[in-house]
Parts: sequence; structure tokens; C-alpha cells
Amino acid sequence: MSSIDKVLARIDANLDASLDRLFDLLKIRSISTDPAFAAPCREAAEWLAAELTGIGIEASVRDTKGHPMVVGHRKSGKAGPHVLFYGHYDVQPVDPLNLWKSDPFEPVIETRPDGSKIIVARGAADDKGQLMTFVEAARAYIEETGDLPLDVTILFEGEEESGSPSLHPFLEANRDELSCDLALVCDTSMWNAETPAISVMLRGMVGDEIIVRAANRDLHSGLYGGAAQNPNHIVANIIAGLHDENGRITLPGFYDGVIDVPESVKEMWQELGFSIEEFLGDVGLKYPRGEKGREPLEHLWTRPTVEVNGMWGGYQGAGSKTVIPAEAHAKFTFRLVGDQDPDKIQEAFRAYVRSKIPADCTVEFIAKEGSPALRLDFAMPALEKGRQALKDEWGKEAALIGMGGSIPIVGDFKRMLGMDSLLIGFGLDDDQIHSPNEKYNLTSFHKGIRSWARVLDELAKS
Amino acid sequence: MSSIDKVLARIDANLDASLDRLFDLLKIRSISTDPAFAAPCREAAEWLAAELTGIGIEASVRDTKGHPMVVGHRKSGKAGPHVLFYGHYDVQPVDPLNLWKSDPFEPVIETRPDGSKIIVARGAADDKGQLMTFVEAARAYIEETGDLPLDVTILFEGEEESGSPSLHPFLEANRDELSCDLALVCDTSMWNAETPAISVMLRGMVGDEIIVRAANRDLHSGLYGGAAQNPNHIVANIIAGLHDENGRITLPGFYDGVIDVPESVKEMWQELGFSIEEFLGDVGLKYPRGEKGREPLEHLWTRPTVEVNGMWGGYQGAGSKTVIPAEAHAKFTFRLVGDQDPDKIQEAFRAYVRSKIPADCTVEFIAKEGSPALRLDFAMPALEKGRQALKDEWGKEAALIGMGGSIPIVGDFKRMLGMDSLLIGFGLDDDQIHSPNEKYNLTSFHKGIRSWARVLDELAKS
Repeated sequence: MSSIDKVLARIDANLDASLDRLFDLLKIRSISTDPAFAAPCREAAEWLAAELTGIGIEASVRDTKGHPMVVGHRKSGKAGPHVLFYGHYDVQPVDPLNLWKSDPFEPVIETRPDGSKIIVARGAADDKGQLMTFVEAARAYIEETGDLPLDVTILFEGEEESGSPSLHPFLEANRDELSCDLALVCDTSMWNAETPAISVMLRGMVGDEIIVRAANRDLHSGLYGGAAQNPNHIVANIIAGLHDENGRITLPGFYDGVIDVPESVKEMWQELGFSIEEFLGDVGLKYPRGEKGREPLEHLWTRPTVEVNGMWGGYQGAGSKTVIPAEAHAKFTFRLVGDQDPDKIQEAFRAYVRSKIPADCTVEFIAKEGSPALRLDFAMPALEKGRQALKDEWGKEAALIGMGGSIPIVGDFKRMLGMDSLLIGFGLDDDQIHSPNEKYNLTSFHKGIRSWARVLDELAKS
Repeated sequence: MSSIDKVLARIDANLDASLDRLFDLLKIRSISTDPAFAAPCREAAEWLAAELTGIGIEASVRDTKGHPMVVGHRKSGKAGPHVLFYGHYDVQPVDPLNLWKSDPFEPVIETRPDGSKIIVARGAADDKGQLMTFVEAARAYIEETGDLPLDVTILFEGEEESGSPSLHPFLEANRDELSCDLALVCDTSMWNAETPAISVMLRGMVGDEIIVRAANRDLHSGLYGGAAQNPNHIVANIIAGLHDENGRITLPGFYDGVIDVPESVKEMWQELGFSIEEFLGDVGLKYPRGEKGREPLEHLWTRPTVEVNGMWGGYQGAGSKTVIPAEAHAKFTFRLVGDQDPDKIQEAFRAYVRSKIPADCTVEFIAKEGSPALRLDFAMPALEKGRQALKDEWGKEAALIGMGGSIPIVGDFKRMLGMDSLLIGFGLDDDQIHSPNEKYNLTSFHKGIRSWARVLDELAKS
């Protein structure tokens, strides 16, 4: 038996123990967006550092102004490329809690009608389950062969779900320590449950939150209705005016830097047999929204969007309350593509919003960190090695896909540390990440661990 | 000393005791819009029935499907008209609680920098303070003269702030008992702190609440953004499309039945010296919103409006959450004038909303009771008597005014019991009803009691 086969056999034999460790991590309530959960975030970091240290990767918890980082190193002294593995231990908030079938922080394994098993918990897929596939692969490798096949650095952050405010300063301050030959990032999905994938295009993101204020207090809508400004209407007008009748975004200059995808790429994507009807049907919808005249995958991966993630103003309780509220709120995120500039888009958005604010009202902006979109180099040597490893494990060619979501770290690695990223992940479209009843297929976890062992093995080959 | 002068002197002498009783009522948390407060609503009804019985008005608490009514009677056997006094013991919710300077259900008397005193509590003005002006006037009259100067029936309801669902069936079932010659309604305002007023035009109201549903769960805005419908955007489009660029409401047929006010009435109102700048300035605003080309009082009293009293969808917590929510909500109220038909307007609104719902989304409507607008008869004999009584008390001619808010009961009295209403109230524009720190001027309470004694005295004169 070759050494990789022995590593894979060990992974299979130790799957239950791997699951126990994952469950320990899933139980930690490391919600980064809510300051009330700062302590569990630190707990997750400390748990990970201890875990790495335990398997022979020298690791430490590193403070930031926000939630801490975990950094680990193991020098193998081998000739292959030095890789940095990145993951995040923080998770999204869990509301609405009443839609969860079990406690989001008490992971359970559920058997589905078709016999397949899923791990249900907040963070099961995004990103605790995914990052643990690499940790467990490293563990099996070291336990079986006494070492890793190449030099490995590990970086776990705890602010991915809240815009990674500490990441830039941390990369800046630890540039030498963290600059490697290649980054491995496990925060993406497979094409489907049978087909592995490597993500080669990622949308960027920029967010903003607005508070529109009118009267200095809530008003009676009978006494003041029609005369006083109503922030609910102002915010609604702002939202409604962002799209034209063809689904295009109206901000001046918004499409600057958007690049049409070459026909050859569109053809490759058409061969993937993507069905927008199935994609939407899975969540109870039927018809694609958005820009007219675009192919579905083109739309999801290569076109910019704006979504209102939250809006609120006035009375939300039972029954009615005839008020004109003093203020109304909305949270926006733009997904960016090509060379769109997050700063310019935020500027254009703010100018637009200001133009919609009546002279006796005000608007306050609460900025979110932005990041541009990213396209990977198709000729990157590691890409072919990654595809080979995935084909060996899954028995199917890995799809080269785009991604609607953002992984800002990939841009940061490229721009700040000069490092390309290989984006391999084992999530699935129905994982309900960011939603109630988030899950990760047991197959994703198990074959994910095996995949990383194979990727390390391939990358180590000269 | 005439008997009315003795009654007035007794009112002055007993003001402190009157205030104590008002405070007892204000302490009861009778919020009718929230089912959690059903018990305090009943407590308020029982408190009032006991109070009326104590002063010699035969009273009882009468069950309904919702909060109970209080009905009281006292036959004087005098020749004058039999009057029915109406008020409501229920109050609006108190949120946002953090903006209250004192507990909304622990009434306090505050002295302002100018030396004037105000009663601060939820319901101080709307409508507990106002209804107690009549109860205390009746008490003084009976205590001083042994009787009331005319037959009096009293009706207090507990659902005014939630659309009075039990009122129609109750009036229907008790038509004979409640049909009198004239209704007295104390739920309105003075023109200003020195000038009493009788309200002769009231806007009607119809409300609706919508829940727009898209996907069967919250979605990740990166994965689904641009492809899946976002209920926040749908609701915003619905709200934004309700007005055109001139502030007119766009629903087909909406202005059917809206009547332009005669020039003579506009002139009378111009003499009131109303300043829209001051009116809006008091709440921190400057410029009138709404239909272009209308005089301010014309706008507030005689033009129909629509206001969104509440809207919400998606994430409202701290930080960001990149979701497309499964549903979004909005609460609407239309203020009606002239002969606008609430049912037709609700139909037009719903047809409009449905036309804005994408084919794979749904909308649910939660209806609110509607009521048409009302114009009182300027030639009504009681009107002149009421004006005389108010002039005697306040030393100034009472203004005949319109009202932006709705008092549906007045229409019900007219249509169901054939009874005109005299709308006299002592509220002021800065009472902050429905808002935090609601107050009622001590002068309004004291001179309000005196005013009702005078009104009863005038009405009793042949």
C-alpha cells in the first residue's frame, strides 16, 4: 500500500473520532457579528490552537482589535511548495431561531429518507465543517507517515462573517510569516453532490447601512400624515430606485469595470447542465429575477447585484399602531465582478441616497468593509494538481466554476502577499448556510478529509 | 351664586382628588392592540364602572368578543336632550420604551420652565385624561346639585386603538339602550392652548397589512442574489409606487368621492393663522410633504393620504448578515375624506399590491376595520350651545376645525343610531399621543372638567 493509501485508510478508520472533534467545535457559539459573543469566539480560537498543537502543528492564538486569529506552522523540510491553509471559525447569527428543528449549537447527525447522513448545526458547512476536513487530513497524514508532505502554515480567522476588519492589519503585520507559495481555501462548494469543483471566479462585495431620520419623534399618522416626511417611504423609494425596469442597477458608473464573459467560458458552463428551474425550485421559487438577457450561470457568477438584507421602520408588533416613525433603516450589500471598484461604488451609492433625502431629513451611513471581485489564473500549475487529486477521490472531473458569494481573503492573499489561492470546498447548494438548519453532508466531511490528503500528496509531487 | 357657578367652584376645590382618580386609571396598562394586555383592559373597564356607580350613575361592564364595554345611565327626568358621552379606556402600545423619560404607567406631574404643569403618562391625553374630564364634571354636578341637568348615558370602549372590532355588534345589539338625542365625544384637540375648538370634519381610515413571501427559507445573498426574488425589494417597490412625483396617490379611482373644500371654508381657516412652519418645526421638520398645490390645513384636514406605519424584512441586528429573507412585511393606513369608500379603496390597494407580486411569490393581507370620513352639520342646534359654553369657559370663540385623525365612532353613531355628535376635546398638538412621553396639560384637565359642566348646563337650557 502506498503511503497515501495508508493515510486514506486511517482517515476511514478514524472517522468517528474526527466527527467527535468537529462536534466539539460546532458547540462553541462563535457568532462574530454580535459583540455579545466575543467570549465564545475566543474559545473557538483556543480550541483550534490546542487541537493543532496536539497533532504536531505549532500553533498560537493571536490577538487582534477584534476576534483573535489562530496561526499554525509545521516545517516538513520537503522540497514541495509551502502552502497556507485558510479557514474561519466564526459563524453567522442563528435567527430566526424558531425555524431551527434542533438547537443550532447542539450538532446532530440526521439520516435522510434516501439513507444519506447530514450534520446539522450552525457552522456545519460554513466554515467549521470545511476547515476541519483539512485539520483531520493533516492529523491522519502526520499520524500515519510521521510528517506532512510539504511545509504547511495555517491561518484561521474569526471575523469572516463580519467583513474581516482585522485581517488587513494582521496580514500587513505578519507578512513574512504568512507569505507562502500557495494558499488553500476551503470555503466553497462542489458543483453537485457527485461532482467536485474548483472556484475560479469570485464576486466581490461592498456593503452599507443607512439610517434615515425625519421628525424628532414618532408622530401620529392622522395628525401629521401627508404633511410630515415618513422615513419608511423615503427608504422604500431609495430601495425601489436602485433597479430599472430591466433589472439593471441605476447608480451612475455602476457597470464600469464589469467584463462580459468570453463565449468559450459560457460554453463550458453550459455543459455543466445547470438548471435555473431546479436551482430556484429547491427554495420554492420558479422564475429568475434580475437583469434581462443573461444566462443563469453568467448572471449568478459574473453580474453585479444589490440586495437589501434587512429593512425596518415603525411598528412591527401585533395589531396596528398609527405612527409615522422618526427613523427607518436598511442594510445593503453589493456583489461586485470584474474590475468594479468597491470604494467608487460605495461613493456612487451614497451620492444616490443623499439625492433621495428630503431637505429636512438626514441620513447616517454605517460602512461595511468592501473587497473587489477576483478571477484566478487558469494556467496556475497548482490548479491541474488540484483537479487530479479531486478526480482521484470523486471519480469525476472537477468543474471550474464561478461563485456568487465573496471570499475577500483570496483577493487579500493575492494583493498583499502575492499568493494565488486554490479554492476547493465540499459544500452543497442545499447546505442552508446563513439560514436555519444549516447542514454539511457526512460524505462531504469524510471525502473532504480524503480529498485534502490527496491534494497535499499531489502538490508535494515535483 | 347660580347652580353652575357652585358646580364650577366645587370642581376647583376638588381638583386634587380628581387628579388622584385619573392617576389610578392611568396606572392600568390597558393596551388594547396587544393580546397580552387583555387582563389590564378588563381591569380598566371594572375600575370605570365602579367609579360611575360610586357617583350615582348606574353602570356595568359588558362583555364583547374583545375587550369589554362600560355602559352607564342616569335619568334626571329633565326635559332637555338625552346625551350619550363616549370615550375609550384603551391606550396605544408604549414602544419604544427607551425614549420615555418616566415609566409610561406611573403618571407624574411635571412643571415646565414656563411654570405650566403637565400630566405625563400613556393615555394622559388619549383618551383617559379626556374621558375623566366628563366623569369629574358629572361627579361635581351630582354632588353639588343632587342630580345631572339632563339624562345621561355613558359608553366607554376598550378597542378604539385597535379598530373597534366589537363596536358595531355592540351598537347593533343595544340599539335601543344607546340611542340618544346627541352624542358627546371627547377625543379631540383644542385649536391651541388658549382657543377651544369643536371638530366638524374628520378623516376616515382604512388599513391593511401585507406579508410578501418569496423563497421557502432565508437565502444567502451571495449564492442567490440577483436570481431569487427579494421580498424587501418587492415591498419597497409597492410602497414607492403608491405616490407619483406630485405626491398624489396612484391607485385607480382613489380620488373618487374626494370633495374640494369651498373657498368660504378655506378663508375661515386662513383666519386661524395656522403656520405649517411652526407645526412641522415643533417636531424638527421644515417642509410640507405630500400633494403639491394645497393649503396646509386643507391638506391636513381634507386630503386623503397613505402612510406606512411599519415595515420590516430580513436582518435587523448589529453588524451584517448577507441574507435574502423569505418574507417582508408592511402596515399601511389610508386616511379618507369626503365620500371615499373604505371598501373600494381596500380593493384598489389589494389589486395594486397583487399586480406588483412576481409570479412565484405570494402576498397575504391582514385587514383592518375601515370607516368613511365624516362632515358634521353646521346648522346642528347643539353646535351653537357647545360654542357658547366653551366661550364662557375659555373667553374665546371656539374654532370650528377639521381633523386629520379618525374617530370612527362618530360615523357609527350617525349611521347606526341616527345620532349627531358634538366633538369637544382639550388635547393639544404637542401632547405626543401615540408617542413616548404622552402628556395632558393640567389646564386641559381642569378647564376641561369645567367646560363639560358648562356644556351640560347649556344643553339643558330650552
